[in-house]
Amino acid sequence: MSKSAVLLIACPDQKGLVSTIANFLFEHGGNILHADQHQDAELGLFLMRVEWDLDGFALDLSELPARFGPIARRLGMEWRLASSSQRLRIALFVSRQTHCLVDLLYRYRAGELACEIPLVVSNHSEGRWITAGCDIPYHLVEVPAGSREEAESRQLALLEEHRIDLVVLARYMQILSPTMVARFPNRIINIHHSFLPAFSGAKPYHQAYERGVKLIGATSHYVTAILDDGPIIEQDVVRVSHRDEVPDLVRKGQDLEKVVLSRAVRWHVENRILVYGRKTVVFS
Amino acid sequence: MSKSAVLLIACPDQKGLVSTIANFLFEHGGNILHADQHQDAELGLFLMRVEWDLDGFALDLSELPARFGPIARRLGMEWRLASSSQRLRIALFVSRQTHCLVDLLYRYRAGELACEIPLVVSNHSEGRWITAGCDIPYHLVEVPAGSREEAESRQLALLEEHRIDLVVLARYMQILSPTMVARFPNRIINIHHSFLPAFSGAKPYHQAYERGVKLIGATSHYVTAILDDGPIIEQDVVRVSHRDEVPDLVRKGQDLEKVVLSRAVRWHVENRILVYGRKTVVFS
Amino acid sequence: MSKSAVLLIACPDQKGLVSTIANFLFEHGGNILHADQHQDAELGLFLMRVEWDLDGFALDLSELPARFGPIARRLGMEWRLASSSQRLRIALFVSRQTHCLVDLLYRYRAGELACEIPLVVSNHSEGRWITAGCDIPYHLVEVPAGSREEAESRQLALLEEHRIDLVVLARYMQILSPTMVARFPNRIINIHHSFLPAFSGAKPYHQAYERGVKLIGATSHYVTAILDDGPIIEQDVVRVSHRDEVPDLVRKGQDLEKVVLSRAVRWHVENRILVYGRKTVVFS
Amino acid sequence: MSKSAVLLIACPDQKGLVSTIANFLFEHGGNILHADQHQDAELGLFLMRVEWDLDGFALDLSELPARFGPIARRLGMEWRLASSSQRLRIALFVSRQTHCLVDLLYRYRAGELACEIPLVVSNHSEGRWITAGCDIPYHLVEVPAGSREEAESRQLALLEEHRIDLVVLARYMQILSPTMVARFPNRIINIHHSFLPAFSGAKPYHQAYERGVKLIGATSHYVTAILDDGPIIEQDVVRVSHRDEVPDLVRKGQDLEKVVLSRAVRWHVENRILVYGRKTVVFS
Repeated sequence: MSKSAVLLIACPDQKGLVSTIANFLFEHGGNILHADQHQDAELGLFLMRVEWDLDGFALDLSELPARFGPIARRLGMEWRLASSSQRLRIALFVSRQTHCLVDLLYRYRAGELACEIPLVVSNHSEGRWITAGCDIPYHLVEVPAGSREEAESRQLALLEEHRIDLVVLARYMQILSPTMVARFPNRIINIHHSFLPAFSGAKPYHQAYERGVKLIGATSHYVTAILDDGPIIEQDVVRVSHRDEVPDLVRKGQDLEKVVLSRAVRWHVENRILVYGRKTVVFS
Repeated sequence: MSKSAVLLIACPDQKGLVSTIANFLFEHGGNILHADQHQDAELGLFLMRVEWDLDGFALDLSELPARFGPIARRLGMEWRLASSSQRLRIALFVSRQTHCLVDLLYRYRAGELACEIPLVVSNHSEGRWITAGCDIPYHLVEVPAGSREEAESRQLALLEEHRIDLVVLARYMQILSPTMVARFPNRIINIHHSFLPAFSGAKPYHQAYERGVKLIGATSHYVTAILDDGPIIEQDVVRVSHRDEVPDLVRKGQDLEKVVLSRAVRWHVENRILVYGRKTVVFS
Repeated sequence: MSKSAVLLIACPDQKGLVSTIANFLFEHGGNILHADQHQDAELGLFLMRVEWDLDGFALDLSELPARFGPIARRLGMEWRLASSSQRLRIALFVSRQTHCLVDLLYRYRAGELACEIPLVVSNHSEGRWITAGCDIPYHLVEVPAGSREEAESRQLALLEEHRIDLVVLARYMQILSPTMVARFPNRIINIHHSFLPAFSGAKPYHQAYERGVKLIGATSHYVTAILDDGPIIEQDVVRVSHRDEVPDLVRKGQDLEKVVLSRAVRWHVENRILVYGRKTVVFS
Repeated sequence: MSKSAVLLIACPDQKGLVSTIANFLFEHGGNILHADQHQDAELGLFLMRVEWDLDGFALDLSELPARFGPIARRLGMEWRLASSSQRLRIALFVSRQTHCLVDLLYRYRAGELACEIPLVVSNHSEGRWITAGCDIPYHLVEVPAGSREEAESRQLALLEEHRIDLVVLARYMQILSPTMVARFPNRIINIHHSFLPAFSGAKPYHQAYERGVKLIGATSHYVTAILDDGPIIEQDVVRVSHRDEVPDLVRKGQDLEKVVLSRAVRWHVENRILVYGRKTVVFS
């Protein structure tokens, strides 16, 4: 497969935006592979993702900012450039339950996620066996009560050392400090085991059982300073009945958590997600 | 189709319950058509629905309480008897949005709901045309601000006059008084246009839009004194995306509301629902 | 809501297409509201739908062909222009089962389908009551065995008289002749009550019951000369179990049929569908 | 958790069956934990699954056949007894694609499948790494063209040696001989990557792509002598669009295959499945 580049753009809506962007790429010989845009009428906002073939593209990507910058400034654009040749570097965080970890590592191994996973960080040792099978370093960083600050400074050192772009909380059961969150804005993805905003916080399957709901859900979202409140990336649900006790909800929910988290990670890796306000656009 | 009867039973779990109930029916020549039971281990509760053919059943149903009563008392049962020859009488309440009304009346006309619908009550006139086509009386009971008490006394008179067993709030946008609710315990079904407990209260589609969820839902439940808090009967969801604005959520949600409400009504009519605590069992 | 226009385009894939189309619209003051495109890599095909605001658009739509034609010829485009001010005219065909008819007419009445429905054609009289309530003429055209040709010539006369653009077979149980189909290429939509290609032909719910499937489906598709073989527009499924007998499949299936057919009709009305080969693109 | 036993029963429908079975268990002190039954009205067939607590049950399970046999003969029952203390022994067969293998082994490890998996058999080596991590022997039995008979005799020897009860074809891409199938009637489970009966045979995702379907599916079923024709245990689907090319269908489909196969295996292990004719009952 040949290489491609992606531009993610957000700016005030106005006439001629598609034309301007398409012309810029065409002038340099870029063949558009995918383009998807969205207007938020209420906010007067234009959001676009455009992906083009680097084969035949006359501009070196390192020069693109200098050429595209003036256009972007004139139109008030926030923009981001990504290239398929630069693979995102992801750290997986996990606690005792390893279903999401095993699932993500399998997909990574199978080539489904076009990223690098240079390390797994955990406050427990349950996930070690699978990382061993995949030759990925497993860093045990315990978080005894009252020692979060110290643990996070060790975690941050690891993230820095490995030049990590994205942290994935694959059922990591510690709450991150605001400081840690602020270091990775819109670059920490969590999986919460409920259909948010229902049942935020602790023990969502127990909450769901108590309320007697007929469907349970899972939600992947970017982490913000407020617990379970960040922009939602993906959600899904599965049917339950009065026959399902909490362990059944856990079992059924785990199958959801895996697909809902892995979709979010894949979309982030493929530069399909734009956060605006408290929401996400997921470009197709 | 021959006639059948249904027993709904709840009692402390203990050995020999199935045997006792099955023996009682067998002794009088009853052929069991369906039986479904559920144990709530936590509460030590046994719940059962059993339906049998009245063809060949030696006992007249009017005599059943005298014969079954002693057994039930001995085992601490709460129980309810229903017969397919006694059709439940339902009043539909509706406001301006008539999609659920049209849907329920179509199903009623098509023979999908084995009940009687002797009247529709509304505080608006939008639904009149469809009731006219179905020859069902349409009672306009307006509810100007501050006059709920008066309106409810007119509504209660109608319900009494028509010997109504079940009230279905088919997108009726007034909140019922505790007095009204207490008159029909577990006999008022509402459709709420969200996946409860998320987005209870007013304007749930607007709330969902603001939060940026990726699925929207609908919930049918029995009405209790606390708004949107009663035992959930059925829920379903549909996928939405950033492209969907509030009117799209409304349109997609209406298709959910129709099926989620009509399932609840059908299950109630078929005596499939047992409420216990804040939950429902829906027997299959 | 202001008026808008839509261009649907298919042509050999090549560089500069998005740029050319966006420039054409921008030069005449068109503000793009939505644009969606698709490349079929295998066929080397580019497919696009672009919708723009007519408010501020300097070109009268009647002049557009003269101006856009040369561009289109140069790039080998097949294209179609539609305007929200010209509402499509739809004829609904129905037989005995009226759930889809009632559903479509309710949506039409509620403003969900931006079209005209000047008539309903049926070989039975079951649907007359609902059309009466909606003030839509109901034409009874019986089709006794061996008289299809005569019936179709009456139907065609009606379609011509009412300048019909699209025929919707809303559970119309007669097979149309190849002649009739050829008169409305990709302009007859049928609902088939199975998940095609499984269970094509007669009595699909019986076939599904015999095979013991765990889900049943519905499929809306354009009608071609080969039965149940045309390009699929939309499909959906619902779960069934061993408890569901044929009448249960019918009841559950009808809820599917309604949503699957109504989506197809809405997408056609909104000019979202492009047929290519044996497939459809449904633009979002 | 205390031990339990399960009876699976099929017999001609007649009065008093539930009563007879419940009495038999009650007389020996059995507390029924779950009971579910089904009548096939068309075939006049009664099917039942009953599970009871062995704690307090006065009869040793080895004596049950002698005691229950006369009752069963009188009522024309086919029946099967299973106990939670005797774990089923399963062999997993796999070829190159290992997503189902990894998924099943993870569930096994996590305690979700109450069985033994003493070996994995494969005609390729791709799955070896995961079995190594789980300490499960991996037997490579290659099947060069024309040598199926020889390979199967080696496979059968392994199955015999390990006293295998159930063979699970977890994306095993060889067709088994009728002889092999006959050795394990209703005891070989396959996952087919389509919504059967659509797209049976080879390359179902390619077939689905060609036909332009809007949903793809997966089907788990018992293997019979006719390819992809055995009794269906479970099915599920996922939405696709014109944007999805064959590799996307493969990726989306794999997530389906995993859950659809693992549900079938779990239900078989829990003795929830009765095959009758060409169908299955899955007891809840």
